[in-house]
Amino acid sequence: MLTDPQAYPSGLAWCCESPWKFMSLFRPNVDRIAGYVPGEQPQTGGWIKLNTNENPYPPSPRVAEAIREASQRLNVYPDPVATRLRRIAADLFGVDADWILPGNGSDEVLTILMRTFVDPRESIAFPYPSYVLYETLAALQGAISRRLPLHRDWSFDLKAAEATVAKAKIVFVPNPNSPSGNLWSSDVLKACVPPRGVLVLDGAYADFASGSTGSELLQSEIGERIVLTRTLSKSYSLAGLRFGFAVAHPDLIAGMRKVKDSYNCDSLSIAAACAALADREWLRQNTSKILATRTRLATALAGLGFEVVPSEANFVWATRRSGGHRDLYEGLKRQQILIRYMRFAGAANFSEDVYDGLRITVGTDAEIDRLLDVMKTLV
Amino acid sequence: MLTDPQAYPSGLAWCCESPWKFMSLFRPNVDRIAGYVPGEQPQTGGWIKLNTNENPYPPSPRVAEAIREASQRLNVYPDPVATRLRRIAADLFGVDADWILPGNGSDEVLTILMRTFVDPRESIAFPYPSYVLYETLAALQGAISRRLPLHRDWSFDLKAAEATVAKAKIVFVPNPNSPSGNLWSSDVLKACVPPRGVLVLDGAYADFASGSTGSELLQSEIGERIVLTRTLSKSYSLAGLRFGFAVAHPDLIAGMRKVKDSYNCDSLSIAAACAALADREWLRQNTSKILATRTRLATALAGLGFEVVPSEANFVWATRRSGGHRDLYEGLKRQQILIRYMRFAGAANFSEDVYDGLRITVGTDAEIDRLLDVMKTLV
Repeated sequence: MLTDPQAYPSGLAWCCESPWKFMSLFRPNVDRIAGYVPGEQPQTGGWIKLNTNENPYPPSPRVAEAIREASQRLNVYPDPVATRLRRIAADLFGVDADWILPGNGSDEVLTILMRTFVDPRESIAFPYPSYVLYETLAALQGAISRRLPLHRDWSFDLKAAEATVAKAKIVFVPNPNSPSGNLWSSDVLKACVPPRGVLVLDGAYADFASGSTGSELLQSEIGERIVLTRTLSKSYSLAGLRFGFAVAHPDLIAGMRKVKDSYNCDSLSIAAACAALADREWLRQNTSKILATRTRLATALAGLGFEVVPSEANFVWATRRSGGHRDLYEGLKRQQILIRYMRFAGAANFSEDVYDGLRITVGTDAEIDRLLDVMKTLV
Repeated sequence: MLTDPQAYPSGLAWCCESPWKFMSLFRPNVDRIAGYVPGEQPQTGGWIKLNTNENPYPPSPRVAEAIREASQRLNVYPDPVATRLRRIAADLFGVDADWILPGNGSDEVLTILMRTFVDPRESIAFPYPSYVLYETLAALQGAISRRLPLHRDWSFDLKAAEATVAKAKIVFVPNPNSPSGNLWSSDVLKACVPPRGVLVLDGAYADFASGSTGSELLQSEIGERIVLTRTLSKSYSLAGLRFGFAVAHPDLIAGMRKVKDSYNCDSLSIAAACAALADREWLRQNTSKILATRTRLATALAGLGFEVVPSEANFVWATRRSGGHRDLYEGLKRQQILIRYMRFAGAANFSEDVYDGLRITVGTDAEIDRLLDVMKTLV
């Protein structure tokens, strides 16, 4: 609405320089992008929520205890560099603490990356279809988004990608990818390192993968060009906490630290993240349950006639040759089951003009049973 | 270090286009600014900490209870628009919920404001001396910082400010100001509204003020150009929580919402903030104690020969004609008392080339007694 002066109800937020010239108070980049539409988060009970890749199991019991302790001392500022957390996270990756930058969710880490490395009119690149946020963050920064084409089997079209990678300040690769759940090999990832920028390996779903997600590249000859990002939202069952971090060479972290707000992580989330990261046995048990249910879900969907991409994440991507994906989503929603209907325009190497499908989060066994029961009535 | 290629130990984070040309991976704006140096946060016990305007009293007891409840459901995402919080905050200002934008501390709200309204090479303005963060955020955005000159008594030199205000996309005015603690009248604030931008009234210390901090301007004829910011770090004793919010016309909030991360506030801080904001009686008792101690501190410092600016905040600004402020700060630190020594270069209408002084947070009565005892031995 704000980009159309005729539709604007009041003169005050617009400057009349002359009767013929209107001007928004916002940056043109902000005017241009669409307003944020929150994902479906039903506020009433009774829903089975398989639409935002939340973990259906509770976090480690140590988390609530750490939060209770930290809540006794909230009148003072948090440790601005989260010293203890960085040590714990660094140990997981075999690096020193100065390789870690904590963030208010890995979304904030992605925002910090964009603001650290990419100037207006410079470009970023990412496989398409993948995480839609990269494009939004680039638009906010006034940067150019370029898509790296994928083959129909979700493998990279590396030849077609080469020139785009060469120009990028950041190449973002979610590994495993969303919505597909597939994993790319380290050899493919190496080809995505831009000669004048960094490769960000977005590991939101890395803990669910059976193979390497590329983190060993940190220790390779191109290690100073690699940034790993991690979130506690999925595998640690802490979507409500907003905690993520970057792992990268200390020289890269030093630049990113200049951009972050001084106190970007609060005392409660730092304490909770320390407790969660330290409980390795709980993580193992949690992801084991998800992986078992994922196998069952994928097999059952295949039995119902879906093509299911072999998933290395806590969701599966299901499509049917006959289409009708949106109707299936709507049919499930009428039964209070939320999954994600996704639609990608202009996905180069997919045959359709618009490529769409269903992304289904791996819930509990009972939730998946109910989903499959209803799905059987719809297909 | 990163701006000096000679000093750089490795070639990898620099791109050799030719033997004569080096290039940092970072944005030039990031290279240019100094690295972040965290404030003094001693990690050992025994310190009296009067340097970062933390509140010495605990938050409302309802806060810990709200956190405990919210910690039972951390596996799901927070409400991305913090519906309940916005209603509670809106009621305090007599506006609707769509006038409120919650943030991860008011520092994040300031970052969002900069990224919503200010493009590279546009300008912002703020009184000087005031909060140092405005200048850092502008530098990150590639924007120009301009200082609005103040008279020796901390009143605005409005005539000198006029041309600078006219060019600004945002004018930031902390009211009460830091480090001085003085309050500016609404008439003065009106003169600071930029014709093509917004006036941000940074109310970090507003709850400690006896007079108006300008929030009534929201309802005036220039209300669509005013943004109030609030933090829970000071008056609500929740510096560890990172929670703040903006109050502004819904059209302005809509633009800011496009810029914020989808889930910028976590479930624990939203729940805690709701509990804290709702406990008005606790806020009243807490600020009453601070105000009584502030009066006692200011009187005692005046008795020791300091000029003390009449404070409307939870700190006082003290200077001596004879100077020696840094020595006093060092002397106190040797006795494990931390206050803030501050130094402002090029403060136009102050007589000195470099203007400096001591900012002392109002602690408990016992802490202030100890400070005064040691100060007596130093002056």
